[in-house]
Amino acid sequence: MTETHAIAGIPMKWVGPVRISGNIATTETHVPLATYESPLWPSVGRGAKVSMLAEHGIVATLVDERMTRSVLVEAVDAQTAYTAARIIDARFDELREVVRGCSRFAELIGVRHEITANLLFVRFEFSTGDASGHNMATLASDALLRHLLETVPGISYGSISGNYCTDKKATAINGILGRGKNVVTELLVPRDVVTGVLHTTAAKVVELNVRKNLLGTLLAGGIRSANAHYANMLLGIYLATGQDAANIVEGSQGVTMAEDRDGDLYFSCTLPNLIVGTVGNGKGIPFVETNLARLGCTAERAPGENARRLAVITAATVLCGELSLLAAQTNPGELMRAHVQLERDHKTEKIGV
Amino acid sequence: MTETHAIAGIPMKWVGPVRISGNIATTETHVPLATYESPLWPSVGRGAKVSMLAEHGIVATLVDERMTRSVLVEAVDAQTAYTAARIIDARFDELREVVRGCSRFAELIGVRHEITANLLFVRFEFSTGDASGHNMATLASDALLRHLLETVPGISYGSISGNYCTDKKATAINGILGRGKNVVTELLVPRDVVTGVLHTTAAKVVELNVRKNLLGTLLAGGIRSANAHYANMLLGIYLATGQDAANIVEGSQGVTMAEDRDGDLYFSCTLPNLIVGTVGNGKGIPFVETNLARLGCTAERAPGENARRLAVITAATVLCGELSLLAAQTNPGELMRAHVQLERDHKTEKIGV
Amino acid sequence: MTETHAIAGIPMKWVGPVRISGNIATTETHVPLATYESPLWPSVGRGAKVSMLAEHGIVATLVDERMTRSVLVEAVDAQTAYTAARIIDARFDELREVVRGCSRFAELIGVRHEITANLLFVRFEFSTGDASGHNMATLASDALLRHLLETVPGISYGSISGNYCTDKKATAINGILGRGKNVVTELLVPRDVVTGVLHTTAAKVVELNVRKNLLGTLLAGGIRSANAHYANMLLGIYLATGQDAANIVEGSQGVTMAEDRDGDLYFSCTLPNLIVGTVGNGKGIPFVETNLARLGCTAERAPGENARRLAVITAATVLCGELSLLAAQTNPGELMRAHVQLERDHKTEKIGV
Amino acid sequence: MTETHAIAGIPMKWVGPVRISGNIATTETHVPLATYESPLWPSVGRGAKVSMLAEHGIVATLVDERMTRSVLVEAVDAQTAYTAARIIDARFDELREVVRGCSRFAELIGVRHEITANLLFVRFEFSTGDASGHNMATLASDALLRHLLETVPGISYGSISGNYCTDKKATAINGILGRGKNVVTELLVPRDVVTGVLHTTAAKVVELNVRKNLLGTLLAGGIRSANAHYANMLLGIYLATGQDAANIVEGSQGVTMAEDRDGDLYFSCTLPNLIVGTVGNGKGIPFVETNLARLGCTAERAPGENARRLAVITAATVLCGELSLLAAQTNPGELMRAHVQLERDHKTEKIGV
Repeated sequence: MTETHAIAGIPMKWVGPVRISGNIATTETHVPLATYESPLWPSVGRGAKVSMLAEHGIVATLVDERMTRSVLVEAVDAQTAYTAARIIDARFDELREVVRGCSRFAELIGVRHEITANLLFVRFEFSTGDASGHNMATLASDALLRHLLETVPGISYGSISGNYCTDKKATAINGILGRGKNVVTELLVPRDVVTGVLHTTAAKVVELNVRKNLLGTLLAGGIRSANAHYANMLLGIYLATGQDAANIVEGSQGVTMAEDRDGDLYFSCTLPNLIVGTVGNGKGIPFVETNLARLGCTAERAPGENARRLAVITAATVLCGELSLLAAQTNPGELMRAHVQLERDHKTEKIGV
Repeated sequence: MTETHAIAGIPMKWVGPVRISGNIATTETHVPLATYESPLWPSVGRGAKVSMLAEHGIVATLVDERMTRSVLVEAVDAQTAYTAARIIDARFDELREVVRGCSRFAELIGVRHEITANLLFVRFEFSTGDASGHNMATLASDALLRHLLETVPGISYGSISGNYCTDKKATAINGILGRGKNVVTELLVPRDVVTGVLHTTAAKVVELNVRKNLLGTLLAGGIRSANAHYANMLLGIYLATGQDAANIVEGSQGVTMAEDRDGDLYFSCTLPNLIVGTVGNGKGIPFVETNLARLGCTAERAPGENARRLAVITAATVLCGELSLLAAQTNPGELMRAHVQLERDHKTEKIGV
Repeated sequence: MTETHAIAGIPMKWVGPVRISGNIATTETHVPLATYESPLWPSVGRGAKVSMLAEHGIVATLVDERMTRSVLVEAVDAQTAYTAARIIDARFDELREVVRGCSRFAELIGVRHEITANLLFVRFEFSTGDASGHNMATLASDALLRHLLETVPGISYGSISGNYCTDKKATAINGILGRGKNVVTELLVPRDVVTGVLHTTAAKVVELNVRKNLLGTLLAGGIRSANAHYANMLLGIYLATGQDAANIVEGSQGVTMAEDRDGDLYFSCTLPNLIVGTVGNGKGIPFVETNLARLGCTAERAPGENARRLAVITAATVLCGELSLLAAQTNPGELMRAHVQLERDHKTEKIGV
Repeated sequence: MTETHAIAGIPMKWVGPVRISGNIATTETHVPLATYESPLWPSVGRGAKVSMLAEHGIVATLVDERMTRSVLVEAVDAQTAYTAARIIDARFDELREVVRGCSRFAELIGVRHEITANLLFVRFEFSTGDASGHNMATLASDALLRHLLETVPGISYGSISGNYCTDKKATAINGILGRGKNVVTELLVPRDVVTGVLHTTAAKVVELNVRKNLLGTLLAGGIRSANAHYANMLLGIYLATGQDAANIVEGSQGVTMAEDRDGDLYFSCTLPNLIVGTVGNGKGIPFVETNLARLGCTAERAPGENARRLAVITAATVLCGELSLLAAQTNPGELMRAHVQLERDHKTEKIGV
């Protein structure tokens, strides 16, 4: 593993600025997006422009944060699994100490469990400071599992991960119980900006959101998802900031809501499963550190504050791209024209490179 | 858009070789993985090693391929939507000509539709040669939609995309109706390799797969997904080969199956939604072209053959990583020890960088 | 099995009349509901009253019908499963003859399949005349499976039912591929009826439908479902007409849509998975026959027409109850007051019994 | 509403006895099943026979119970919704008192919430004694909602039910957070009984369960469901005991697990969402009271004990039918032969009636 690795150089641009306010950060910042899909840049850019034309910009409210890992144990039978679950509930303080003994940053903040047949899935919830926390949670869960196997009668090792966590899989549990940062973003777009910049009306966006994002995804058999393309923006900013971008799988499960407020457009994106960190794997690479610094996410702050700042910037970026695409799709042919135009520009650009 | 962009340099390594056979390609090839998660390389590497110790290596069978886009139209009422749907069915040949008129490579191969209230979702299916086909499908759907709006009475524009496609969202429809390449990979691991290289037994892997991948994901509220971490391998190879990596969202929805065959381990990964291409967006970048060439995916072949080759290589890579991780999780503590060791190596390595 | 059985006497009432039009039936009919939940009667009754105040009443459009059964076969490997699938596709006419040879009423109208690992799921689709068709489909699938096992190389018996049908389970496949009758109902409620009978406004119903049925169900991790209580009405009419009421599981997966049309309320319920029949199991019991006759579903008609008539009556009944409950829930406290009042009436009534 | 209603007479039989043990009841009891599907009786009967041949019979472990109702409130914005959620968490004791003030039996035992945009869904969890608790939960939630609207700033009425409860809809939330009784049943079938009574082997049942219940349902796009036909048994016993049978929608979401233990068959059914009660709606009807009494569910016991007894009897009945059907489906043709035979008997029987 000491062999020097090569580099996959993904094209990256800064777009913006985006205006952000809310319970975590008040800022105007450009955001970096690394992607092979060049139309993403002007699309997010248009949304960012809209944010600058709204009084408070995008109001981002962080409502929860936790990282999770579920272990699986096999019990002699269901009754033993049930008894084990009750023991685990009763010993929460003890388990918290186990975690404190193996990590400076991870803190056990919750435990949930579910029994099926003689199997017991235990889902540990941690706060993990500025790290996204995958490894911290695994390390702590390994210690917790060892402790449980030693002290709870009638159970044996099943798996260090029981897929009840759930990492990088599309499920319902993360939204319902929480995993990662849960951020709600809201933007009130004045009527003239809706018309002038987005070339649409609030009523049209509301109607499209119901039909495409809510109904269309439902008919496709979606799970806890109602949006046009969160995954695109998440991938772009995750790659640019050294995140584990495979977490876009659950990150993309979020909900866009829109309201026509007398011609103004209330537009909101809720991202319940944002997995981001400003320290840990993927960080330490020079361009990543540069990007995080430019985003203001490497300052000396209380643990967790930089990661929360990154979370709201990420969520605001998602809103920018979502708003822009939805607005475009309200108009027949606009998306295609934009793509064709961009492809042409892109070709020019590549010659420039 | 002519401003020069920067580069996000993702660490990339080639691992392998992987032995592959099946209905698309017979080859032994190294595979490139671009990722911030360095443990992925040795994990996939171990699976690759196992593939070299099996007679036919990983047998990869491509069973379907198509790219899709759904448009949404609003009808006067449900009866009109129903009549429109029947017209669309009856005019398939005409619609195929519309597509031929706007694209050299896209071919309309199927149409499905669903009605809710007065809304009609029409899902077009295309073959798209060596391209993953997002843009081709959008371009063709734009033409089809315009044609329908002009010729079918009682309908009006809803959206160029109705989320019934479904692109980069976790849903059930792609697996059921098909989207991207559908590849099944199988590997029969001899008993002594299970023991000697994977440090486990077939019975343990089978049991873990049922409990973690099938049951654990089910309890988490998963949708058409039963695997440990397909998303990781997909991200790595997608970034390394210029794919639109946001497609790991649906790509990660696949199923791992395992059987204990008298101590030998039958291990299979089915990926119904592999979106890959060897031409189009993301291609043309020098390192991408180099990687595709080294994978043998830039040869002069009939349209679609290079993309299919890339699909089976991708699927085989997924199997390598999945097998290795599952084997590790059958043993208490192994995953943690491996991570800790790798982190240490990684730190050393970074110093080297 | 010749022992005389007892009777579970479920309270049953006729409510209505409901006005229905559309592509299957134009009628005004009372509908029978058997239920322990007495508030259901006045709730559906209010919706029925609204239907009588709309010019065309409830417009019910049947857009599809089929009954399905999936068999499961194990193949030697994925390649053999793939070859088997292609053989099955190629031999559709032959398979149709197999079905004709074992049933007078069942007709094979489609085949879909999916491969995972070395397993092949084959989903047969039948038209089944006036029967809901469970047994007919099983009988035909049994013959088809035997035929395939005898004539397709490399496959062996897996299961007569592979849960890919899907019967009485909540899944996405039935809505996407079709199972049972697919009926869309629409009702345009004039503004003064919205106010006078439903005590609400179109805008309020639209808003509640988006927030509760579409968003609330999504957040709960629902699958292809957006309604308040289809299951209640389905159970009531299924029991009253001799249906296999366990089919409310998938029957309840449907979508309510609402639009504010200048103060008038456009209200629509789409039920893609209505499993109903007018002959077969559960029929032949005197009160069932009486009910079916009173609904006009035992007339001498072409095969399938009575069942289709029952389907649209059932769907219209669902709309009545759905509209009434949603309207009630737009007003704080109304639901509770109604329940309390009804409980009081119910007690009085029971004394009367 | 004082008009006398009619009766829908559903055929009903008692089958058994079933042997049950576990943390709630130790008993041997016959069970009543009301159904139009006569094959259900001998199918459950065979499973019951197997239970009598196992030492402890079916071991039923109740692991959780609660009834829920979610209300929906609209906040001025997401920040206000977040503040409201925190207030609700902080005032749990106060809310509990509100519930105590409006119900003798309902007790508030938990509150969960989720925010999307400016909407706040609050899910109240109650213990409800021997009642299934729908009405009790609605009554209490009505009081809680009124209290919140009066005391928490910035929120207004959305809905008394936000579909985040979730009642009679197939979702993931009920299994994850709990709703109704959560009962795990286990049966260890001795090898000779597997062979002699079930005409199969443990290995065959295990294999079929993985392929059909776990994999087949997954491929169909199922949500938290892996069983063959829980809905059938639930419907039968729900109708026979005066339950709100529309709750089979979520009741049917459960998981069958099987293990081959040296030729003995470990067979388990987990039903996380069993909604049953022994008092309340549907009770008071003479045949229902007779049935409940014969099941031992009307004794003078602490509140909740009769309902818990009914829950484990119901769950054990589900296991009987599930085991019997799965065993039958391991053998080609057996299901069809059984159906044909039963249909013939049924015809004879009907003549007898």
